[in-house]
Parts: sequence; C-alpha cells; structure tokens
Amino acid sequence: MLPKPQIVNLPVYQPGKPIEEVKKELGLDEVIKLASNENPYGCSPRVRAAIEQELANISLYPDGSAAELTDVLASRLGVRKEQIIFGCGSDEIIALITRAFFLPGDETVMADQTFSVYKSNADIEGAVSIEVPLKDGTHDLEGMLASIGEKTKAVWICNPNNPTGTIVPHAELVSFLDRVPGHVLVVLDEAYSEYVTDSAYTDGIALLNQYPNLVVLRTFSKIYGLASLRIGYGVGQPGVIKLINQVREPFNTSRIGQAAAKAALADQEFVADCRTKNREGIAYLYGEFERLGLTYFPAHGNFIMVDVQRPAGEMFGSLLQLGIIVRAGFSKYPSFVRVTVGSAEQNAKFVTALEQVLGKSATRV
Amino acid sequence: MLPKPQIVNLPVYQPGKPIEEVKKELGLDEVIKLASNENPYGCSPRVRAAIEQELANISLYPDGSAAELTDVLASRLGVRKEQIIFGCGSDEIIALITRAFFLPGDETVMADQTFSVYKSNADIEGAVSIEVPLKDGTHDLEGMLASIGEKTKAVWICNPNNPTGTIVPHAELVSFLDRVPGHVLVVLDEAYSEYVTDSAYTDGIALLNQYPNLVVLRTFSKIYGLASLRIGYGVGQPGVIKLINQVREPFNTSRIGQAAAKAALADQEFVADCRTKNREGIAYLYGEFERLGLTYFPAHGNFIMVDVQRPAGEMFGSLLQLGIIVRAGFSKYPSFVRVTVGSAEQNAKFVTALEQVLGKSATRV
Repeated sequence: MLPKPQIVNLPVYQPGKPIEEVKKELGLDEVIKLASNENPYGCSPRVRAAIEQELANISLYPDGSAAELTDVLASRLGVRKEQIIFGCGSDEIIALITRAFFLPGDETVMADQTFSVYKSNADIEGAVSIEVPLKDGTHDLEGMLASIGEKTKAVWICNPNNPTGTIVPHAELVSFLDRVPGHVLVVLDEAYSEYVTDSAYTDGIALLNQYPNLVVLRTFSKIYGLASLRIGYGVGQPGVIKLINQVREPFNTSRIGQAAAKAALADQEFVADCRTKNREGIAYLYGEFERLGLTYFPAHGNFIMVDVQRPAGEMFGSLLQLGIIVRAGFSKYPSFVRVTVGSAEQNAKFVTALEQVLGKSATRV
Repeated sequence: MLPKPQIVNLPVYQPGKPIEEVKKELGLDEVIKLASNENPYGCSPRVRAAIEQELANISLYPDGSAAELTDVLASRLGVRKEQIIFGCGSDEIIALITRAFFLPGDETVMADQTFSVYKSNADIEGAVSIEVPLKDGTHDLEGMLASIGEKTKAVWICNPNNPTGTIVPHAELVSFLDRVPGHVLVVLDEAYSEYVTDSAYTDGIALLNQYPNLVVLRTFSKIYGLASLRIGYGVGQPGVIKLINQVREPFNTSRIGQAAAKAALADQEFVADCRTKNREGIAYLYGEFERLGLTYFPAHGNFIMVDVQRPAGEMFGSLLQLGIIVRAGFSKYPSFVRVTVGSAEQNAKFVTALEQVLGKSATRV
C-alpha cells in the first residue's frame, strides 16, 4: 500500500480552535472566536426559509450541475452559465484546478505568505511551488512574473490576501496579466472581495473576457455567512471551466448549500450591511491599535493582521486564557496575529483582552 | 493552459434525470424517479430536529474532523476513531483514495460492470483500470485475483454491486482476501450493505482487523436517506486512513451533514423498517417480472437489474413518456434497466407502465 511519496509528509491544516473545545478546556462561559474570518452577523434571514423548504427533498441527490443556482449567479455576474463551476467551498475548486492541470514536476507560483491550500494541493500533485515573498505584506507581482518559467502551469493571487489582508491595485494587476504568458493559468482568489471598498480594487470578473487564462474564485463562506454549508465557485472562460469540471465529482455540493446560496444572493442588502459594519469595525480596531502603539497591514477583507510585538504564539495563548481565539502561526510574521473583525461588542472585548495582555507583558519586562 | 492529457476526454457522469426536468419537458403532473437508488421513505424524523438546531451555526465552519459524529460512529461500528474518515459522499472517499495512492501507470482492478466512479478517478490519476467481466452479474473474484500484478495498487469490490445488485458471498470474499498480496489495497464499497438480508453476506467492518489492506466504504445517501446532504465514510486501519486524510480538504463535510448523520445513526428503527419494506418491494417486483416473463439478477440492494428483452434505451424512453424514470445505458447489459425499489405505490405504477410498454412493443412485433 505505497502512497504517492509526495503526500506522506504533508503538513496537516490547522483550523481555528472550535469555541466549544476552548470553553471545555479552560472552563470559560464565554468564548469569542475571531480566528476563521466567519461572518459575525450570521447570514441573510432569507436563507433559513430556503433551507426549510429544501428539507422535503433531503433523501434526493442534489442537481449535480446546480442549474438553478448557476442561472441566478450567471445573471448576477453577467457571465454565461458555462463559465461557472461550484465546489465544496472555493477550497475544492483549488483542489480541482490542481487535479486537472498539474503534472509532477510542473511549477506553480504563489506568494509567501498566502492561503496555504494552494501549496498543499500543488504538493499532492507533485508540482513545485515557487513562493515569492510578499513586499510590505502585498503580492510582489513583478517578482512573481520573474518566477514564471517554461514549466509554470499556474499563478495564484489571493486578493485580498489571506493572511495579510492587502490588495493588488487594478493598474498593477492588469499590467501583470498583460505580461503573463497565455499558457499560464492565473487564479485570482477573491474569497473576501465583497468586503473591499477601496476604489483601487479590481473585480476579476470584469477582466475575464480580456484574459482567457484567468479563473476567479469566490465563496459563500465569508460575507454571505454560509461557511457551514460548504459552497464556493470558480468563474472563467467555458473552455477552462469545462476542463476543471472533468475532475469534479458528480454531486459535490448539497441541495441545502445550493438553495441557501441562491437565497443569499437575492439579499444584497444584507451583504451591503455587513460590508458597512465591517468597515466600521476596521476603523475602530485601527484606532485602538494606534492607541496601543501597534502597527498593522491595511485591511481589505474582514480581518486584520496586527503586529503584537512579541511571539505570536504567546499572544495567542494569553488571549485564549481570556476567552478570545485569534490566529497565530504565520511563519513569515512571527510577531503578528490575524484577528477577524467581529461585531462591535466582540471587537471591544478583544481590545480589552489585548490591552490586558499587553499591559501584563509590559510590567513583566 | 495544458491540462493533464488523461482528463481531456473523460466521459461525463450521467446522473438520473431530475423529476422537475422531466415534468417540464413532457408536460406531466406526476413523475416517479426510480433511477438513483434514493430512499422512497425519506429519512428518520429525528434528522429534521437535528438540522434545525444546527441552523444557528450556519455562518461557522464545520468541525473538519467531524469529532462528534466520529465518536458516535466508531462506537456503533466497534472501531477506533482513527479508523474513520468522512467525505462528501463515499464518492469523495473514492477520489481521495486514488489521489493519495495512484501514480501514473499504476494498475487497479475492478469489475466490468460496476460503479463508474472507480474508473473515472483512476483515469484522472493516469492509472490503468483492469476491468474483469462479471460472471452471471457477480464479481469474478478468481479472475480479479489473476489480474493482480506487480503494478496493482488497489482492487475495487462493490458489494452489493451497482448496477447488478449481486453480492460476493462471505467464504469467497475471505478466500480472496487471503490471497491478495498485502501491498494491494482492497476497497470494499458497501454503499448498499444496510439493505442486505442474505446470511451469506459479509460485513467488511468485521474483517478489518484481519486484513490491514482493507478499506470499507459506506454512505448516508442510501438507507439513511441523506443523499442531498453529501456525507459518506471510509473505515480502515489507522495507517491507511491517515494517508487518505493527507489529501482531504480541511472542511469537506457540512455541519448540517454531520448533525443529520449523527441523528440518523441514532434511529436504527427507521433503518430496519426501510430494510423490511425494501424486501417486500423486491418480492413484489420479482413476482411481477416473473409474471411478465422477464429475468433479473438477484437483488441485494434497493434496486433490481431486469432484462426487458429489448434495447434498454428504448425502454427508458417509453417509460419516461409514462412518467417513470429508470436507469439504462449499461454497456455490458444492453437489454437491462436498473430500477430502484420504490414505495409499494411507486412499484405498482412502475409495473403498470412496464406492462403497458411491453404490451405495445409486443403488438408491434
């Protein structure tokens, strides 16, 4: 039973610690999880009704092609139905792209640091990841371009970038796309795009007709608040989407996921409201970080990467004791934690806890 | 954008035709789908309450390790937690096994004809499928054993077999397992095992300790009636499961799927009731087929493969006109259709339609 040699020592993905587990371990009544960039406002109230209705069909397989949801989304995005593929979160689309395109020895270019799932899937396929260091927490597109060679199959751009939260401005992205060889797939991961308000940000969907080698990834797990249901999507030219579809399992999304996503798309007021509250939360956190003398990367998603000026693992542990779960463990940023922008109340509690930890540490020094 | 050459011309999976589509196309009020081996009795009433409770957590990522469900299932099966892996249906476990183990040029042995997803995933990995013809609709284990060579990574046994419905008897399976080289993975796909009542049938779980190269696949899509939610599992020795886990996406099953499966497992009365009704349906259909002079394979799952004595595609089309969807298109059985055992009422309507089609064709001859 010999596995592929390249999969044996893959690092295991470390998800955010679950609330219930922390409560039990530490004997806490209240735990606030700001570790997985989930929507603190849940999802649109329309979703529940859509799910309730779908419960009557629980024993029936979903429509594998998600035809109804595809219609609604295609019309919303202004693309053709053949340009869309759904997955078990955009995570699955990443896996499908690598499974459809990568042969052992192929190369793929990505930032260091960025969403870890690009590299783990490249590793599974035996492809070589060329990781180009971020510059000031932002994708170094010139450096990435210089790393593209004959063996390069795909380039990954996470925009906004996870974990730093930075964006690639429109002009730089277009200049990059103009120079990427046409045989190289450019995957633009826009999981957090609905949160962006900066006018320098580019919507990748609008660029699809101009760049046939572009695939845009989006998800219902973030601003739409459906992380539990596992549904995301990819958009590209029909030829590319057809190839990704070749390796998709026939029933890879659930009926409830499809129905919920359809209902969620119909409620753009909820989305706009979440976006506004998120910006308010960011403004509040920026102010508090400045008051505490902490620097941070400009935040365009629903999370902030902040320099806590001590080992991130230590800060993670101290905040955990106070019932706040954040994310640490970013190898390139050993003194930074990534904190999700929560509700106003959650943000205030996080700041209180942070201040308490910072104060204690200070007196210790 | 060159894909893996082996994926370009993969055949596209043909799912059963959806009810709504047929209603629309043919202008029918009532359509009965007996094409996808779904449970005609839905699912346990306990499932709905479990789902309703989980809706409060809709914006939160699921527990990627499905810890609670794993506990319940491990205890029910009498295995350790480390022996279980969950997937988006057992389909995904098939995909993960091939992705973890198969290198281009590896060989894999399976029946012809059996569940098409084994071969499609082997194709994606560039592995070579050795297809051993069924004998009287049953796995030819001796022929499969003879097909195992140095390059063989895995053997697939679908038990009961889809689409024929036959089982491999205990003695034959054990004798086979005794002789399969230890480095060859044996995947025992038991998607329909909970329907089997024949005492010659072997529960693969009981064999796991004896055969460390064995992996058993099960699903909540069939007797548990949760096809829409996409949840299935694999069971094997911890070492094998760990390797499959290496290529699993972190959040591959939904919160609702996990909660529903847990509730479904707790209601074994529902399962037993479905099993009894299914046997009654089979007895009824056997009788009607005999009355109509049609032969069939012994049915151990919740479907029957029946020889309709004319091109299956023609029968499929004629039944469709009468609002009954069955499954045709099995290349090795051009005059057979596979019909799901429905409720008593559905079965009777199917027989009436079948008789009508058979009668019309007879007068045409």
